Amino acid sequence: MRVINSTPKADGYRMPAEWEQHYGCIMIFPERSDSWQYGAYAARKAFVKVASAIAESEKVTVCASDKQYENARRMLPPNIRVVEMSSNDSWARDYAPTFVTNGNDIRGINWGFNAWGGLVDGLYFPWDKDNRMARKICDLFDKDMYDFSHFILEGGSIHVDGEGTCITTEACLLSEGRNPNLSKTEIENYLREALNVEKIIWLKNGIYNDETNEHVDNICAFVKPAEVVLAWTDDKNDPQYEMSHSCLEILEHETDAKGRKITVHKLKCPSPVTITAEECEGLDTMDFEPTRTPGERLAASYVNFYIANGAIVMPFFGDPADEPARELLQSLFPERKVIPIAARDILIGGGNIHCITQQIPYFAQDR
Amino acid sequence: MRVINSTPKADGYRMPAEWEQHYGCIMIFPERSDSWQYGAYAARKAFVKVASAIAESEKVTVCASDKQYENARRMLPPNIRVVEMSSNDSWARDYAPTFVTNGNDIRGINWGFNAWGGLVDGLYFPWDKDNRMARKICDLFDKDMYDFSHFILEGGSIHVDGEGTCITTEACLLSEGRNPNLSKTEIENYLREALNVEKIIWLKNGIYNDETNEHVDNICAFVKPAEVVLAWTDDKNDPQYEMSHSCLEILEHETDAKGRKITVHKLKCPSPVTITAEECEGLDTMDFEPTRTPGERLAASYVNFYIANGAIVMPFFGDPADEPARELLQSLFPERKVIPIAARDILIGGGNIHCITQQIPYFAQDR
Repeated sequence: MRVINSTPKADGYRMPAEWEQHYGCIMIFPERSDSWQYGAYAARKAFVKVASAIAESEKVTVCASDKQYENARRMLPPNIRVVEMSSNDSWARDYAPTFVTNGNDIRGINWGFNAWGGLVDGLYFPWDKDNRMARKICDLFDKDMYDFSHFILEGGSIHVDGEGTCITTEACLLSEGRNPNLSKTEIENYLREALNVEKIIWLKNGIYNDETNEHVDNICAFVKPAEVVLAWTDDKNDPQYEMSHSCLEILEHETDAKGRKITVHKLKCPSPVTITAEECEGLDTMDFEPTRTPGERLAASYVNFYIANGAIVMPFFGDPADEPARELLQSLFPERKVIPIAARDILIGGGNIHCITQQIPYFAQDR
Repeated sequence: MRVINSTPKADGYRMPAEWEQHYGCIMIFPERSDSWQYGAYAARKAFVKVASAIAESEKVTVCASDKQYENARRMLPPNIRVVEMSSNDSWARDYAPTFVTNGNDIRGINWGFNAWGGLVDGLYFPWDKDNRMARKICDLFDKDMYDFSHFILEGGSIHVDGEGTCITTEACLLSEGRNPNLSKTEIENYLREALNVEKIIWLKNGIYNDETNEHVDNICAFVKPAEVVLAWTDDKNDPQYEMSHSCLEILEHETDAKGRKITVHKLKCPSPVTITAEECEGLDTMDFEPTRTPGERLAASYVNFYIANGAIVMPFFGDPADEPARELLQSLFPERKVIPIAARDILIGGGNIHCITQQIPYFAQDR
């Protein structure tokens, strides 16, 4: 693995849209007992369902610690590859590399990772093993790496259309805990150079109580060029109401990098999902404190789906809004099979299906 | 990765000779401070030289712990892949899988590993991480695995000609600490099924004071069908004298699987190599005891070389016998470049270049 000292833009590489052809997907086997209930038993089962659904149409590699390697190998089907890799938690979206392509080969971007806010408002300490993963994954796939480790960014905080446009949120990218010494313009420049985009659309915020400082991948996602889904509610008493309306307002007045108006599909959220006392009982403490409080609202959103080569793998919450959400996504991706996964056990960890996956774009095999 | 419940022989797979075309080579970055001097600093440098020499003509993958990953990545050239994998020590020959081929694809054999003798005369405890490696490496390369984990065997205790013949030693394969409940015939049957060989040539012993119970790969190696090199000494006062002569006697009266007489090339050993008090000082203790004693003889042999696609990577000991050994190997492998590596820092760990490498036979890329 070579470390490349230029930028993807300078070398003619760009981050493709998630619906472009994949080589495969990378995931991380869950383990930490302060993130995941009952020693992560339930989460592991849900992760296995997600991995298996994706593996129907692309190659899946799951990273597991040495300690969990045997369990991962036993629980996952044989067509999924399991490799040993240490991590602090299981958010492949946020610390696996962002891959860029020149149409033939791919390279990885190693962003800096500080657990969603470092010592300011990060979610756990330390995060050293997570922060080593992007480099290790580039090496694992024998792909060269752009070193952006001095710039803090999680993969879940950006979405691209593959045609020059990036969507992100101010709540996250301008947060205290990430790059406080960089101006908005400087941050934009990093995104332009790394993702090879010309236009950055800044939403103000994301999903209510989303502890990632409101990652864009929970509120808004491209479904094709100039078309997005937006997490939505019509309930004026829900704090999400103002947040989603603010996003709509911005999107309606924006154009993408190619000057196109953006079509917004409202993807209605489930009724507020809160964690139960029994679920909180199943979580270990962190720094001598409980990690969740009974009744705490979780950042549930159908926008947090994954686009596989042949499928849309989406979360279900056991809510009346499940079916309408499935129907909308199916209509937007008519050539892919929508596979719903009961995702409460993932949501309890603080994210959802998009957060625990990272696509690897197609590349020509050259060995 | 699928676990296959038949045997290579039943499926038409065989272990190829080491000189047949490789996909590449696997090695393990050294770390343990009771095996390797001064926290393994010197050994790491020697391993890097070996890996770099092999990487001139085939793809090398080096496994490193999370703790050593950064050092490995920094010390190894970029054309070598580094992957995280936990181990108890660094003997890829002995616990990486033995790969078998059907001419198109390869599969791995997962032998049982118990640190060269388990609780009888094993060299360290525990050996659980080593014993998981064959499985992990098959998975890493996306290759199916034959599970022979109930049969204890190290890769260094067998050599094959790829044409139906295996050479091994009684001292090792019939030792108390490996498969004490199996008869010699039963052990032969395991080798026949796993390696797909018809003839097993049993040498009585190997190199004097070789703590692996005298692995064959330190005393005798095929260099082409019906031709071997044999570690040799003419010094009648050396305990090696009787051992090497016994091997010669056996080889001269044997034929291979195809009925051919075996040509033996004597590869003279260096003068006895012993560990110094200063070197012993640099080794941590194990179970409250020193791991080596000053003056202890090390199992130095030129037979412990690795055949890469374009090179013979062989140990040098700073001995007058170095050059004649190089010349003999060069004459036996005229189309490969002989690359000598100063190997004392590897030898101190208890083995040599062949012991720290494991070839991966060529396979057709199919993705």
